[in-house]
Amino acid sequence: MEFLVRFDVTPPASMSADERERLRALERVRATELRELGILRRLWRVPGRRSVVGLWEAPDATVLHDALASLPMFPWMDVSVEALATHPQEQK
Amino acid sequence: MEFLVRFDVTPPASMSADERERLRALERVRATELRELGILRRLWRVPGRRSVVGLWEAPDATVLHDALASLPMFPWMDVSVEALATHPQEQK
Amino acid sequence: MEFLVRFDVTPPASMSADERERLRALERVRATELRELGILRRLWRVPGRRSVVGLWEAPDATVLHDALASLPMFPWMDVSVEALATHPQEQK
Amino acid sequence: MEFLVRFDVTPPASMSADERERLRALERVRATELRELGILRRLWRVPGRRSVVGLWEAPDATVLHDALASLPMFPWMDVSVEALATHPQEQK
Amino acid sequence: MEFLVRFDVTPPASMSADERERLRALERVRATELRELGILRRLWRVPGRRSVVGLWEAPDATVLHDALASLPMFPWMDVSVEALATHPQEQK
Amino acid sequence: MEFLVRFDVTPPASMSADERERLRALERVRATELRELGILRRLWRVPGRRSVVGLWEAPDATVLHDALASLPMFPWMDVSVEALATHPQEQK
Amino acid sequence: MEFLVRFDVTPPASMSADERERLRALERVRATELRELGILRRLWRVPGRRSVVGLWEAPDATVLHDALASLPMFPWMDVSVEALATHPQEQK
Amino acid sequence: MEFLVRFDVTPPASMSADERERLRALERVRATELRELGILRRLWRVPGRRSVVGLWEAPDATVLHDALASLPMFPWMDVSVEALATHPQEQK
Amino acid sequence: MEFLVRFDVTPPASMSADERERLRALERVRATELRELGILRRLWRVPGRRSVVGLWEAPDATVLHDALASLPMFPWMDVSVEALATHPQEQK
Amino acid sequence: MEFLVRFDVTPPASMSADERERLRALERVRATELRELGILRRLWRVPGRRSVVGLWEAPDATVLHDALASLPMFPWMDVSVEALATHPQEQK
Repeated sequence: MEFLVRFDVTPPASMSADERERLRALERVRATELRELGILRRLWRVPGRRSVVGLWEAPDATVLHDALASLPMFPWMDVSVEALATHPQEQK
Repeated sequence: MEFLVRFDVTPPASMSADERERLRALERVRATELRELGILRRLWRVPGRRSVVGLWEAPDATVLHDALASLPMFPWMDVSVEALATHPQEQK
Repeated sequence: MEFLVRFDVTPPASMSADERERLRALERVRATELRELGILRRLWRVPGRRSVVGLWEAPDATVLHDALASLPMFPWMDVSVEALATHPQEQK
Repeated sequence: MEFLVRFDVTPPASMSADERERLRALERVRATELRELGILRRLWRVPGRRSVVGLWEAPDATVLHDALASLPMFPWMDVSVEALATHPQEQK
Repeated sequence: MEFLVRFDVTPPASMSADERERLRALERVRATELRELGILRRLWRVPGRRSVVGLWEAPDATVLHDALASLPMFPWMDVSVEALATHPQEQK
Repeated sequence: MEFLVRFDVTPPASMSADERERLRALERVRATELRELGILRRLWRVPGRRSVVGLWEAPDATVLHDALASLPMFPWMDVSVEALATHPQEQK
Repeated sequence: MEFLVRFDVTPPASMSADERERLRALERVRATELRELGILRRLWRVPGRRSVVGLWEAPDATVLHDALASLPMFPWMDVSVEALATHPQEQK
Repeated sequence: MEFLVRFDVTPPASMSADERERLRALERVRATELRELGILRRLWRVPGRRSVVGLWEAPDATVLHDALASLPMFPWMDVSVEALATHPQEQK
Repeated sequence: MEFLVRFDVTPPASMSADERERLRALERVRATELRELGILRRLWRVPGRRSVVGLWEAPDATVLHDALASLPMFPWMDVSVEALATHPQEQK
Repeated sequence: MEFLVRFDVTPPASMSADERERLRALERVRATELRELGILRRLWRVPGRRSVVGLWEAPDATVLHDALASLPMFPWMDVSVEALATHPQEQK
């Protein structure tokens, strides 16, 4: 089942540039793992914003939640999830 | 997987009272079938409104869509669906 | 009478991880008590968010308020309550 | 338990002035009965609008719904209900 | 003239518990005075929230503003005011 | 007491151009009377829209409502009213 | 350049079932052509709604507009378009 | 003075295709005149919609209103106007 | 040209009471100057709030912006501006 | 391809006046470069606000994002981007 997931990341102003960079590197590692697991399908950037739109695939919303919560930046992410149904014109 | 589903039903003003009653009876029959299939779990009425809040269970959003679309009143329903994840305190 | 209750918990950034963990443990204890009292019926997690949707049952809104205010995290919770009426198809 | 209830009445343009007047008279009769039953407590008019704010009292949201649905204008009313809890400064 | 007044109180995180309690006691005293003056008519609590709905009566919006601004918690209150007209069914 | 009143007028598509013109003429007559009574103080047009912003003065919201309801176009007006308090810098 | 496009289709109540079916068939033909041109990439259904979310690719917004406007149902579609930028983690 | 003007045009379903085409032709003529007068500066289309964003220049909002109201499609346009100030980086 | 201007003033919590009072006094001086220049016409207070509604007059939005930006509290003001057109019933 | 870009700049309260002025000067330099590259076309100020509306031109949203992200104030900007299509009346 696919989900359209939109999130903004807003690390606190008090976080050091080093810590931010360290977390971003971990984030990229974890994102790569989630792609290999087939959970994270595609990411896009919303132009002009620190927002990301993504296409995710998971058996249900609980597995999706756990995948999102495993991202190192999760404590500073504002996430919204939209469940998608298969369109009859798609032969998936 | 569970879904919180909210809908309003607004049959067109031009529909006769008889036709409306006939559709409502069919609606009750179909709802009973969906309960027996374990897809429709609970319904509540929003007080003062022709709106309904329901708890539904389906393997994914496509099966849920097909269940909702099988309701005789579907062409006049405005539906919104929210995917729910299991809360860690629930042992389902 | 049933209520659909939605809340976000946002502990202040200044709260230590220990204090947060201590409050979460107390929260679980209190939630269990409210379940045993039949006030808290079900909880769901909104995927990707620190938000919770719950089904509560209380004789009126004042008792419900007192139950919610008894949660250890209440000072940092943003709560919205929706009163539900019984749907004619439910034989409760 | 008290409820703050807000509604707009928008009879269809096709309804004759006579029918509208007849329904309004029935509405006043029914409102008087609901006052005598102690369900309808107070009504106010929102200035400049065909909207009404009311204070209602009912044991639960299901009884409130049935009272609202018994108003002759109910099919053309858009209603929103807010459950109220007793304020500690009120000795009701 | 009556007004429906809704407010949230959010004292700053930096305010000590003692100061908060002292202000709340002063608030109760002032609210009692406003009731005796016939300006504050009724208060309700919005369940699950630190929000209050109240029915106030004042000759005009300027007197109402002064009454609200005299509350010790006013600097931390977010207030919205709705002017109410008399409903023809009320014989006030 | 002053009120900021905003309204849109949307006569039904079925109203003839003649009837519309007749109502507009009556509207101008009634507006002139309300100005002479000191209830209607100023009108502005919202550029590009059939919306009007006005400054009205009335002893209370009930008198204001009756003045608005006396406008011949009232049945097709969508009105919102905002109560204003005197600003301390104004010596009215 | 990719675009996230969301639309609802609401054919008028007066359209016959035959005409609706005829247009839907034409719609499927045109959608297939747009897929072959590489403009339409993916479609999803929003569960419970007559809404569609799609991923489109076009050199600019003018070409995208022309592709959307070529759909036989376009006169009854309410469309919103969001421009997407490439995410640095995607090697497209 | 410049204004950002956004409008949707929704001719009524009952308008014939001929009448619509006739009005569109008149619209193009009037738009050309407004460009020559220097009131209409630029137009853009919102992709996927029958909405238009435009840059207009007029000595004040009253002149702008009259220019907009002179468009043959004005009775079916929903318009919103935003006043713009000169940016210090622009040497106009 | 007239403008309806609405603003909230929220000085930072860290500003001392003395500094706040000093700025308010400067604000009153500047407001008096703007009244004498004919730019600031009227001010009203939104009851229960630290919000102000004002009627301003300026040749264009750039002059209005400069007048607003000259207020000593401007750095802490959240301002919204609405351009007004002359109503045909007003002979200004 | 053109884009309508709207942004607010809110540097943190903790930033010194010197640092703010230094960044603003760098911002002007970078804006001039983007104008010379033909990416930044026009800027307007929203009256009364620290908001800017701009007309930008870029081959796609990714190039636009990179241009916006190159502004020295970008970390404190809240940006929204609207893709524009060419209007048939414009011969660009």
